[in-house]
Order: sequence, then structure tokens, then C-alpha cells
Amino acid sequence: MLFFKNDYGQGCIPEILTLLEQANHESFNGYGQDRYCEAAAELIQSKMPDTEVDVHFITGGTLTNQTIIRHVLRPFEAVLAADTGHIATHETGAIEACGHKVITVPNNAGKISAASIRKVFNAHMIQYEHMVYPKMVYISNATELGTVYTRKELEEIRSVCNELNLYLMMDGARLGPALMSGIDYTLNDIAKWCDVFYIGGTKNGALGAEAVCIANTMLKSYFRFVMKQNGAMLAKGWLLGLQFIGLFEHDEFYKIAKRENELARTIQEEAIKLGYPLFMKSETNLVFLVVNPKEFEYLKSRVDFEIWDYWNDDIVIRFVTSFHTTMEEVEYLGVYLKEAKEID
Amino acid sequence: MLFFKNDYGQGCIPEILTLLEQANHESFNGYGQDRYCEAAAELIQSKMPDTEVDVHFITGGTLTNQTIIRHVLRPFEAVLAADTGHIATHETGAIEACGHKVITVPNNAGKISAASIRKVFNAHMIQYEHMVYPKMVYISNATELGTVYTRKELEEIRSVCNELNLYLMMDGARLGPALMSGIDYTLNDIAKWCDVFYIGGTKNGALGAEAVCIANTMLKSYFRFVMKQNGAMLAKGWLLGLQFIGLFEHDEFYKIAKRENELARTIQEEAIKLGYPLFMKSETNLVFLVVNPKEFEYLKSRVDFEIWDYWNDDIVIRFVTSFHTTMEEVEYLGVYLKEAKEID
Amino acid sequence: MLFFKNDYGQGCIPEILTLLEQANHESFNGYGQDRYCEAAAELIQSKMPDTEVDVHFITGGTLTNQTIIRHVLRPFEAVLAADTGHIATHETGAIEACGHKVITVPNNAGKISAASIRKVFNAHMIQYEHMVYPKMVYISNATELGTVYTRKELEEIRSVCNELNLYLMMDGARLGPALMSGIDYTLNDIAKWCDVFYIGGTKNGALGAEAVCIANTMLKSYFRFVMKQNGAMLAKGWLLGLQFIGLFEHDEFYKIAKRENELARTIQEEAIKLGYPLFMKSETNLVFLVVNPKEFEYLKSRVDFEIWDYWNDDIVIRFVTSFHTTMEEVEYLGVYLKEAKEID
Amino acid sequence: MLFFKNDYGQGCIPEILTLLEQANHESFNGYGQDRYCEAAAELIQSKMPDTEVDVHFITGGTLTNQTIIRHVLRPFEAVLAADTGHIATHETGAIEACGHKVITVPNNAGKISAASIRKVFNAHMIQYEHMVYPKMVYISNATELGTVYTRKELEEIRSVCNELNLYLMMDGARLGPALMSGIDYTLNDIAKWCDVFYIGGTKNGALGAEAVCIANTMLKSYFRFVMKQNGAMLAKGWLLGLQFIGLFEHDEFYKIAKRENELARTIQEEAIKLGYPLFMKSETNLVFLVVNPKEFEYLKSRVDFEIWDYWNDDIVIRFVTSFHTTMEEVEYLGVYLKEAKEID
Repeated sequence: MLFFKNDYGQGCIPEILTLLEQANHESFNGYGQDRYCEAAAELIQSKMPDTEVDVHFITGGTLTNQTIIRHVLRPFEAVLAADTGHIATHETGAIEACGHKVITVPNNAGKISAASIRKVFNAHMIQYEHMVYPKMVYISNATELGTVYTRKELEEIRSVCNELNLYLMMDGARLGPALMSGIDYTLNDIAKWCDVFYIGGTKNGALGAEAVCIANTMLKSYFRFVMKQNGAMLAKGWLLGLQFIGLFEHDEFYKIAKRENELARTIQEEAIKLGYPLFMKSETNLVFLVVNPKEFEYLKSRVDFEIWDYWNDDIVIRFVTSFHTTMEEVEYLGVYLKEAKEID
Repeated sequence: MLFFKNDYGQGCIPEILTLLEQANHESFNGYGQDRYCEAAAELIQSKMPDTEVDVHFITGGTLTNQTIIRHVLRPFEAVLAADTGHIATHETGAIEACGHKVITVPNNAGKISAASIRKVFNAHMIQYEHMVYPKMVYISNATELGTVYTRKELEEIRSVCNELNLYLMMDGARLGPALMSGIDYTLNDIAKWCDVFYIGGTKNGALGAEAVCIANTMLKSYFRFVMKQNGAMLAKGWLLGLQFIGLFEHDEFYKIAKRENELARTIQEEAIKLGYPLFMKSETNLVFLVVNPKEFEYLKSRVDFEIWDYWNDDIVIRFVTSFHTTMEEVEYLGVYLKEAKEID
Repeated sequence: MLFFKNDYGQGCIPEILTLLEQANHESFNGYGQDRYCEAAAELIQSKMPDTEVDVHFITGGTLTNQTIIRHVLRPFEAVLAADTGHIATHETGAIEACGHKVITVPNNAGKISAASIRKVFNAHMIQYEHMVYPKMVYISNATELGTVYTRKELEEIRSVCNELNLYLMMDGARLGPALMSGIDYTLNDIAKWCDVFYIGGTKNGALGAEAVCIANTMLKSYFRFVMKQNGAMLAKGWLLGLQFIGLFEHDEFYKIAKRENELARTIQEEAIKLGYPLFMKSETNLVFLVVNPKEFEYLKSRVDFEIWDYWNDDIVIRFVTSFHTTMEEVEYLGVYLKEAKEID
Repeated sequence: MLFFKNDYGQGCIPEILTLLEQANHESFNGYGQDRYCEAAAELIQSKMPDTEVDVHFITGGTLTNQTIIRHVLRPFEAVLAADTGHIATHETGAIEACGHKVITVPNNAGKISAASIRKVFNAHMIQYEHMVYPKMVYISNATELGTVYTRKELEEIRSVCNELNLYLMMDGARLGPALMSGIDYTLNDIAKWCDVFYIGGTKNGALGAEAVCIANTMLKSYFRFVMKQNGAMLAKGWLLGLQFIGLFEHDEFYKIAKRENELARTIQEEAIKLGYPLFMKSETNLVFLVVNPKEFEYLKSRVDFEIWDYWNDDIVIRFVTSFHTTMEEVEYLGVYLKEAKEID
């Protein structure tokens, strides 16, 4: 059975395992105040020299999003997200559980635009006090559909956030693949655009660790209180710093993502060649195809993948490449895709 | 200046003032455990003989909706509402503030259908655990657009709620006008269809009082704890029972609503005759017209009303009749509407 | 049956009823943005000329406390209160329901001291991040035990709040009786000491209205959003402003409180003379006596009062005077107290 | 520098590292629905054959406590804990952040008694509706002071919980040391006494994993929804199951705890012999001594430990043994303790 189900179905890169073994002979301060977390924060900071960021480590995207948003917003303030955004769909209401409405904006290929943000903001201002106050914009980059924001889009969003006095937050669960998708910006730019964002480790070769980067000085104080209250401060916090050392010490973070993207592109191109309609043209490590029931049945018994949606009789399926995926597996998948087409 | 701004801009019917004066010489137990609340509950219960309901009194629609939903739902459960529903729009995130997502369904003339409920429910079941669990259906009757659910629509909604094991809640802020709109059902039917609903007094001639009716036995216990915790249990609770005696003792509740509807219908028919497009064909005491900027300016200086929406250059405005509105005022409004048309 | 159960068991002073009748012929803007609320705010503001306060009207003490605290505190911040404080005991966890811990301090005659505040604060600083951050001090004045803070106590508390950067909030449910208890400070002083406080109307002759006064400029913005979200913004808001006009236009607020205190003092002195032990020496309109079971039984059948506590076989009972209490009732109570003693 | 600071300052037992390396070549279903979690759940279930428990894995004590309590309680319900209980002190208000009051009971050597539970419950029933409803009893075993509940104490607590219809929850962050402290009960008994409890891995040789055991059938449904909403469902969930396989496959869980206790007892006995007063007689892996300032200074430069409290000039310090502690380290500590005494 080939595994293309997701990018969190396998352990971690060898560098991290090695660090774990090495750390197993040492003693540490608890709760993220240790030499590994310190070193990892410095490594991450070195990637964004133009902005002074505070770095904190948390395990899991939902917990990270929840902790950030709980920290930033006052009770009556809301966060604006694409209707495909992770916080709007697949976090079981974690943001509402902290008391905040997620205002959704119709997505365009998984993204939202500066224009749609302004429109929603203005609509809320008319009913001042009787509606929530939109105070934060949440974007995922790469998006849940595998697409990536362009420099121009991000600059426009930052600009509208400046104009309307909104915080900009980036969910970087798949920030690695976004940065390696051929775009013309880096972590250093992201730190300048965003008030707060996180760099996802879990889906990019780590065991389970995300690095929260707080760029806006006004948002830096007391974050550790909110982490602790939200159950997001690990006793053995050095385990998280350690993983980011593994990811960034020799730029494995980027190398993994680059390779994932290439493998995914190979799959996508093969699928196009074979005549599979794309649900969405991906630029990263997610591939979305539309298959008919026969193709679906053929693939299902040979490949582990996710069903994304149902389109009448057809099915949208998702293949995901990870740090663990091999070219051999990609070639096998190509063969199965070809055979599935032939049985039609 | 004519007042057609809303149905909560004036005091109360004389019956209630008289009761207030009379009660001012008596002493009462606090927190709604007094003879007025008891008598009011019995009066209300007498309108729904086929169901044994628990009756509680709260002031204000937002506080009432919030208290009910907080009481009924478990943390991960969500309430489903029309995208025009009051809890989804004009309660400043009061439901999310209690931790619950409001899942919105596109409205059809302010209403939602059994089919749309089933569709949303099924979509959530596919992503079990990763999405909130839709557990309650919230409908407003009359709706925020002045429309009223038919018997057939309500029976279908009840049926899908039974099938999917969902609670049905009716926001009856304008239940009086709904019941007097010519439909073929009564409070007795509503008590059979809904698990919980409230009868709005504030917008129907009272000073400020809503009667929560809990029909589902499973939801009856501990409601007073949630009221108290939510700041919804008034020390001088008899003031609320008293208002419902004023509304129901001689059926003023129905008479007021009937008259409001008739006055609104007169306005709506006059507007149609004069050639004003309707934004929505109302069946109750709300009238929605589309006016151009010149008409708007003319009316604005003579009549107090709400702007509902902007349509390019045109403006959707809302006139509301209340217990306090006179036929003379309606006739004046007709004259102004005619004059506004003539200046075009 | 004599009524000494509480100060919220009867309607309102005649001035308020008269205003209600008069307002019943007028039309108003909703949600507290009307001429009555404006005039009432000005009246209240005129009592505290040295501080510019924002005034908002809410119905009910629990809802008021909850709204203020939700507005002021960030998620990880906590409020410090006496263990007898209303928010710590008789609000069914309303503050915790907003996510905030109530840190309790042992009371001294219902009060807390600057020293105890500092001690609790310092203890929390040692466990920084692992404990909540104490950010607000809540005091009731008069206290739940009928006692009143002295000028010196309040100045010391303000001083420690300045030193530790804490907000000071005063629950003024019974602020009238406190101000009329013979102390040497006024509303003008309270506005200088407190960041936020409320003047209770419900227990001082109104139907149900409290006036929130925000003195700290940093806390003024967006309060109406939190009110609305918390269900604390009444549609017919003018009803609340109106009540405060009734209370303050001719200083009825003070006159009522003065009279209540005098009647209570008469009861307390009579009780002392008769040999009843006091549970607490009250300075306001609450009287706490210790009675034995026989005395209790005798009184119970003649007077409506509250049981405050059980002391082995004895019972602590509470008598409360209100705007409605007459000297005749107080004399009758004196007779019953005498008779109860005689049957021992 | 000797490390006796805590039991979460070092990595994990070698068995777990080996499993990690082995699992690194495999692919898994996400979110705890994998073969490792399944096998771990079966292993744990095998230790409590008389009760059918549901087992879920979460990382971190605060997140686990918060998730359980959020799952179990309705909004107005509260949890009762010792004033030394972890949820009452060192979780930065995590339980209140979910809306629930933590009612504290004065501890007796870190424990609460059936009698104190009944007393608090009864006091709340008198003020029914105006106070929170105590619905759950939280106990830590071993306690935060290193003490352990006896069989008799637990049977009495269970009995009062049955009588008053309360849920019993055990925080088992240090359940291993408790079970190995010489008491006459096992996990099988705990599963019969508790409605829900958790077995702590983080402080007992794992990297970071706790096993929630739900024994009460009424509490089993929908727990995964609350986990996900609370950010407590790890994408790479098999990492948690895997750790419990490492702990329980060859009973390392028990062996570690036994050894920790023995090492701690050695320290405690040595300290007694040297004349150090105990703050608390520990039965597990925590040792609390009272030292004077000179002793403190001497030890501080040689040993890493926690300050627990200040007693006038003296200081209460805590030594903790862990899976990683060696007899050699214990002997060195003994030497330092001796030397510290001699410099007095």
C-alpha cells in the first residue's frame, strides 16, 4: 500500500532522531526555558534579520492557532478567514471555544484578497457594536488547497491591515512548501508582513513542533501565560526546540519542502498527462485530482489517500508528499494512475 | 418626525403600566419565584395545553438566546442558523462568547429549510471529530426579514430534527406578529414542534421581557443555574412575570400583533401602489423598501427609520410598526412616500 | 407578615413610576443612546466633578460585574476578592464563566486590606506564568456584611493598586447606604480611587438599573461591544437612564439610603438592648443577629427574613431595610424581637 | 551540578527511544487512530480487567486536566479540589478558562477527605442556583506534596461521590510513584473507584504522554471531539501510544516508580538523620526539607532543586528523583546535605 494520505503520517527526519538520542543523556530546565529552545530561537531569528521576533514552541496546529488567537484578541473581537481556512473548518470550533467568532470570506483558490477583507470590515462597521469587531486576518500559506500567496497579494493584505488597523496572522503549518514553491519572498519578508505567524514543523519533517514567531512588539508580553493556561506549554519543552534545531541547523526545513514539492509536481504533471481533471492546481505538496468511481475503486485498494470532496458521482481525492516520500513511490503511483485510467 | 424605526422604541401597553403601579405596593420573593411569575407561567402554559412546558422570564433577546444555547449545548456542539439569523449577525458574537460555533446556512427569504439542515449535518459527519457537531437548529419566527414559516416548513424541520437527533429552538422575538400573520398554527403547535423557544415581549408591547418555554423534558433541569450564571436572573423578577400577565391576561399580545401587521400591510400596499420596489415581501410588522437617493433624502428628514442595506446607489430602508403606531401616522407616512416619489 | 427579607423585594420610588408614565408617550433611540440616558449620565457625572467618567446602564449586579470584568481582563488575568465577595460566592460562577479566576482573600468584617492584596500578588509573582496574573481588585462597598470601607482603607488600597499596577473595581450594589453611613468621602472621591465602579439602583429604590462608571481612560473604549455581547445592552435602554434620573434628580438616592440606614440602626440598637448577639456590627441597612431555635421559630412565623448561616444550634439571620420600609414596621419588628426573647 | 529539580527534566527510558527509531520507518493513520495507540490501550486495559475503560492519549498534565473537565462538566458545574491541587494552583487558571470554578478545600497533607467534600457540597446546596453546582471531585494521587491516598480514604471518597452523585477524577501525573509507595491497591481498583483518571507518563519516564482512562460509561461518548477542540489531539498520535507501550510492555512504568521512591526515601532518611526538619513526610519521589539560609546557599551552588515556600527566614526546598536519577547522585546529595549542616 502506497502512503500518500498526508504529511503527518510518519516520524521525523534522521537529524532529529539523532538529536533526541543525544539529549537523552542531559538534564534541562522545564517549560521551554532551556538551551535547546534558546538555540532554536536564535536559529529561527537568524532567518529574519530585519525584524526582532519572539519565538515560542508549541505542539500541533490547532493548539497553536487557538493559543495565538486567544492571546491577541479581546472578547468582542473576531478573526477573518477564508471559508476553507483551517480554523474555520477542521478545528472543531477551537477558536469559538475561546469565545471568538471566525468571520468567513469566500475563498479564491484557498486564498482571500485585500478587497474582500475591506468589504467585510466595512460591513461590520455599519452595525457597530451589534456585530463583532473584525480585528485579525488569518491566512494559511500554503493554503489548505496547496496554493501559495504571491508577494503582491501579501503586500496588499498587509496594506489593508495597516489601513484598518488589523492584525495579520499566518498559519504556516505548510510554510516550508510555500517558501519552496518558487515565490519571491522569504521568512524575512513574512516577519515584516505579519504581526504573528507560525512555522510548522509537524508537517515538514518534525515529530510534532511548531514555532510561533511574534513580530509585533505590542503582542509580545504575557504570551507564555496564555500558553500555560491553554495547555500549550510542554513540561519537556526542550523536545520542541530540539526539533527546530534539526530542521534549521542545516536547512533541512527547506530541502525537505523543496523535494516534497518536486515529487508532488511530478504526480500532478503525470495526472494531467493522463487526462485527470485537477480540482485545484497545486503549487506545493498537495495534489487534488477528480476521479470517477471506477478509478477511485482501483486506486483505493493500492494507495492510501484522503477523499477531499464529492462532486455528483465523481470524487475529489488528495495525494500528499512528505519528507518520507521516495521517487520510487511516486513512480508506482504514476503506474497506478495510468492503470486506473485504462480500466475505464 | 414620524417614528417607524423599530418596535422597541416606545414604552409599553397601558395594561402593564397599571399592573406596575399596583405591584408597587406589594412585597415579593426575589429571582422570579413570586406569585406574578407563577401566574404568568400558568397563563402562558394555558395557551399550549398539549405540552407541559417550563416557563422562565428573561429581559432581552440576546441574553435569552445566549442563555438557552449555553444551557443546551455541550462544548463541541454547534447551532445551525440562517445567515440572516439574529444570533449569526447582530448579537456581537454572544453565542461564540459561550464557546459555540454558529454554522450558517444561506437563507431563503430569511428562512432555512429541512433540506439545507440535512445537507449541513451530513457534511459535518464526514469530518467527524474534526468539525463541530451540529446539534441545534435555530430559527427566527417571524424572521429578521418579516417573513413567517409555514406549517409545512416547520413540520419538515421538526421531522429532520427528529431524524438527525437535533434540538429545535425558535427565537420568538417577533412571535406575536408571526402568529397573527394568517398562518394555520398556534402556540400550542409551536410547543409541540420546538424543544425550546421564547415568546418575545420587548418588541410586542412590553417594557422588556421574554418568556422562555422549555418543552423538551431533557432540557428542563438546571436552567435557573445557567440563568443566574449568565446574569439573566433578575432580582426583581416579578417585574417580568407581571409584563406577561399584561400581555396575555386579555390577549393583548395577539391584538397588538394583529394591529401592527395590518398597519404594516397598509404601508406595504401603499408603497407597491406608488411603485417602490420591495426588498422582501413582508408578512408581518416590518416593511422593506428600495428607495433612490433623492427619495431617501426626502424621507429621512420626515421619518425616523433604519437603513437595512445599500444596493449600488439605492438604499434598502425598513419601516416598523409597533403597539404604539397609529393609523394617522401610517397615513402621514403614505403621504410622504407619495411626495418622495413625485420629486424624482 | 413583616418584610425584612431584602432590599429588592419591592418596586420603586414614586418618582420613577411618574417618569415611566411620562416616557410612555414618547419615542426613543434604542440601546441606551437616548436623551434619558444622556441626561442621567450628566447627572451622575455632576456628582464627580474631578474625574471624567463614562457612564453606562445595565440591569442587575451579576450581569454588571460580569460585563465589567470581561471587559477589563485579558484571558490569563484574575480578579482578587474577599471570600465573602458577591462575585466569589453568589453569582453561580459568572466570572469563571467568562474565563477568569476569582482569587479569594480571607475577609475581615467583609473587607480586604492593602496588605492582603500585596501578599497575594507577591505569592503569584513567585510562580510567574504557572499561576494566573492578579490584575484587578474587587471590593464591595457597602460589603455583603453591611460594613463600609473607611477613607484610610480605600486610600491604602488605591495606593497598593498603583504600586502593583492593578485595577480597582468597586461593586456598588449598596453604594447608597455606604455613602450615607457617616463616612467622610463622596462619589467624587470614589471616582478618583476606582478605575471602574457601579452605582446600584436595584437595591436602592429603582426597578432594576445599575450605573457603570468608568474612570480610567484606558478602559473606556469598546465597553458597549462587551455589553452587547454579554446580553447587557437593553433594547429599551432609556428605561435605565430614566430610573437614574428618578434617583438623582432630587437626590432621592441619598435620602433613601440615609433613611434605610437609620431604620436598620434602630433595629440593631433594639436587638442589642434585648440581648441578641450580633454576627456583625452593621453600618448600613443590613442587620445580622444570632438567634436560638425558639426565637427563630417565633420570628419566622411573623417576619420574612433570610437565614445567613448556621452556628451549631443557633442561626444567624439577616434583616434588611429598604426604601419601602416604614418606622411602623420597624417598631413591630422590635415588639416581635422582644416577645421572642421572652419565650426563651 | 546535581539535578534534583523535578521529574520532567530529562528525556525518556531507552525502551521508548528504541520504539521511536523503529516506528520511524513506518506510516500511520493520524490523530491517535493507529496500531500503536490501539496496542497501548489494550495493554493499559489489561491492567484493569474488572472495568471496561476507554483510553485516550494526550501530552501534558494541564491540557489533560482541562480536556477532561471541559468534557465532563456542564457550564454551571464546578470541580472541588484541595487548595494545593494542581488545577487550583499551577495551571494558570486553565479550568476557569473553560468556564468552571475550582472550589478549594483546605488540604490535609495534600489530600482532601470525604467529610470535607460533603461539607462543601451541603453548603452549596443551601444557596442553590446562586452558587455553582459542585459536580466533580478532583484528587491528585500521589499528591503535589508527595503523599498518597490510602485505600480507606479512596473508598470513603468514592462512597460520598456515590451518595451525592459526584464524579471522581484522579490526576495521576505521579500515579506510578503512588502505586509503588506500598499501598494495597492497584490500577484495577482505581478504575473501579474513579469515573475518569489519567496515568501520567511525562513524569514517569516518557517524553510527554498521559493516558486518559474513562471508566464511567456515561462519560465515554464524544471525548475525541473535546480533545480536538481543545488542541489536545496530536496529528502524529502514534507517538503517544508508542510511549505507553514502552512504559507498560515490560512494566517499566512500575519499575521506574519503585526505584524513584527508593532513592527518594534514601534522601529523606539521610536528611532526617542529619537533623533537617521535613516540611512533609513524603511517601513517593518528592522530598521536602526545611533549610536555613546558610544551608540553602551551600546547597544552591551544588544542586539544582526547587524552592517550594518561604518560612520566615527558612526555606522549604524540594528534591525530586526521576527515572534518570542514579544512586551515585543520591549519595553525592547526602554528602552535600551533611556538609551544609556542618557549616552552620
